[in-house]
Amino acid sequence: MFDNPTHTTLDKMGEFALIDHITKHVKLTHANTVKGIGDDAAVLLKSVDTLQVITTDMLVEGVHFDLMYTPLKHLGYKAVIVNLSDICAMNAVPRQITVSIAVSSKYTLEAIEELYSGILAACNIYKVDLVGGDTTSSKSGLVISITAIGETNINNITYRHTANENDLICVTGDLGAAYMGLQVLEREKQVFLENPDVQPDIEGHDYIVERQLKPEARIDIIAQLLKEQVVPTSMIDISDGLASELLHICKASNLGCNIYESKIPIDSVTFQTALDFNIIPQVCAMNGGEDYELLFTIKQEDFEKIKDKDSITVIGHMTAQGNSANMITNANTVLPIEAQGWKHF
Amino acid sequence: MFDNPTHTTLDKMGEFALIDHITKHVKLTHANTVKGIGDDAAVLLKSVDTLQVITTDMLVEGVHFDLMYTPLKHLGYKAVIVNLSDICAMNAVPRQITVSIAVSSKYTLEAIEELYSGILAACNIYKVDLVGGDTTSSKSGLVISITAIGETNINNITYRHTANENDLICVTGDLGAAYMGLQVLEREKQVFLENPDVQPDIEGHDYIVERQLKPEARIDIIAQLLKEQVVPTSMIDISDGLASELLHICKASNLGCNIYESKIPIDSVTFQTALDFNIIPQVCAMNGGEDYELLFTIKQEDFEKIKDKDSITVIGHMTAQGNSANMITNANTVLPIEAQGWKHF
Repeated sequence: MFDNPTHTTLDKMGEFALIDHITKHVKLTHANTVKGIGDDAAVLLKSVDTLQVITTDMLVEGVHFDLMYTPLKHLGYKAVIVNLSDICAMNAVPRQITVSIAVSSKYTLEAIEELYSGILAACNIYKVDLVGGDTTSSKSGLVISITAIGETNINNITYRHTANENDLICVTGDLGAAYMGLQVLEREKQVFLENPDVQPDIEGHDYIVERQLKPEARIDIIAQLLKEQVVPTSMIDISDGLASELLHICKASNLGCNIYESKIPIDSVTFQTALDFNIIPQVCAMNGGEDYELLFTIKQEDFEKIKDKDSITVIGHMTAQGNSANMITNANTVLPIEAQGWKHF
Repeated sequence: MFDNPTHTTLDKMGEFALIDHITKHVKLTHANTVKGIGDDAAVLLKSVDTLQVITTDMLVEGVHFDLMYTPLKHLGYKAVIVNLSDICAMNAVPRQITVSIAVSSKYTLEAIEELYSGILAACNIYKVDLVGGDTTSSKSGLVISITAIGETNINNITYRHTANENDLICVTGDLGAAYMGLQVLEREKQVFLENPDVQPDIEGHDYIVERQLKPEARIDIIAQLLKEQVVPTSMIDISDGLASELLHICKASNLGCNIYESKIPIDSVTFQTALDFNIIPQVCAMNGGEDYELLFTIKQEDFEKIKDKDSITVIGHMTAQGNSANMITNANTVLPIEAQGWKHF
């Protein structure tokens, strides 16, 4: 069945197109289902003033991680973080997770304990309860599927489709670091494969390697926004690269945007490592994935409340319907933004 | 790391022991987490009188299903049902699901559509909203991970650990059918592998093959119990065989039980097919898996309310702490019940 040449194979289609195609048949029937597929998380009505948000992510060995350079404890930690980041992207606070894993029977108990020690470390740091899951065997690689549940006040929920013209575009932290960390790890893997006696050399790259292996979810930003009484007009987490996420917000909100190359926050280690690898640093920031920073828009009148926050950078603004998503380069030229993102298929 | 002979491999340990081992380190911190790991579903406080229940299950190709005889539409349907059954086992009504799948890029769009048509058929029949998910690629087989969310009144929630001495033990429907359906499918697969020109012969076995390929969740029983104002004192769904589930209730409730071989409901097709395969029919019912019927206990005073229900059979009663779980055979001998269940490792 899978070899019929008249059929469409998934690798020609891409993940987003596949999801769009499948979900057009989905109908929602329950009054308490506020928002289904199409944002970082689904939204359910919990009580008269509280919304519940739910998200799920699956990590597959050989696709999302390489056990040659990913310690199992880090993997467990990261698997939780990618879900908590989606909860944050709804301007919500994570509360519970469920964890399902499929592992080969060749794994040892000690290996699974390592994986769970990372999962529980993330639960502990982010004050999230591990409430359920499933453990089964796999005929081949390791698969981890996590569902996270969070909560937010009904006035604070933040979607992708609600940005307005002239809103300011903000990003948290710095971008491209996780991607450059991955490049360093991949380089050291190749060196090791060619000569197993050579020790891996990640000196000077600790920051970017950690960004790749042990990312964090920006729960601190959610708390800061709440404290400053800023409700973003739209938000998304940066898992597939800034370009892809900007396009999601523009498409969902039916607007254009202008961002400024000079404003994109890039750490000096990321910048220098990119140059060493002959990669343009801004390309890492735009198209590298897995930073798990937040991209959000705010009303101009909220600028005063966030302008002195070290961890928030204004990089541009939303433009009217009919405009495209553009980057204004340092040379003052206008470049249309194109999604590269992560293509897993 | 995985070959160290001093380490414990998972196949020597079993799924339940692994889960017990890992989850002993889990601490719950949120006031609204009512019940974590250890039942069919986790329980969260939704509002002052409503509880939310959450469960998750992962199905792995080659472990839980064989695509040689499992149509993708049936697989999608069943993947939803196994989760809805866990929601029912808490005496709750399913409301929403999320679906994550990992598939090889060699799959066609049409194949994924088939899978989702089964998922959406189950959503439609059971009035459940598909609210989110993740779609990613796999380096090898198909993996489906579903999380289901349900709701129940705070007075109706039903756990495993709350059975009382002398409570009546009830099962729904009939048992062993899914297991015998699997035997028929496996036999026809072998015939086909030996001679691809021979057409599969499942004539007369439609009922048990359907029980294997397209099980249903007993949402009708939950509605019936509500209507009759019977709140079971304990409940679990029968996914691993009656023996295994009875032992879960006995262990969790710290009680023994006596059930009667003569009372175990077995369909005539299951019975005859078991004999044809030289299997004792009651062994299928006790140790065959995937029936997705409900096993529950009720107070003796509730017997009048359920005794005329075709789909509920009383098979025995709970006995005091210190007693074992026993089956009273047709020859009036006492057999201790031992778990066989499904061992996926």
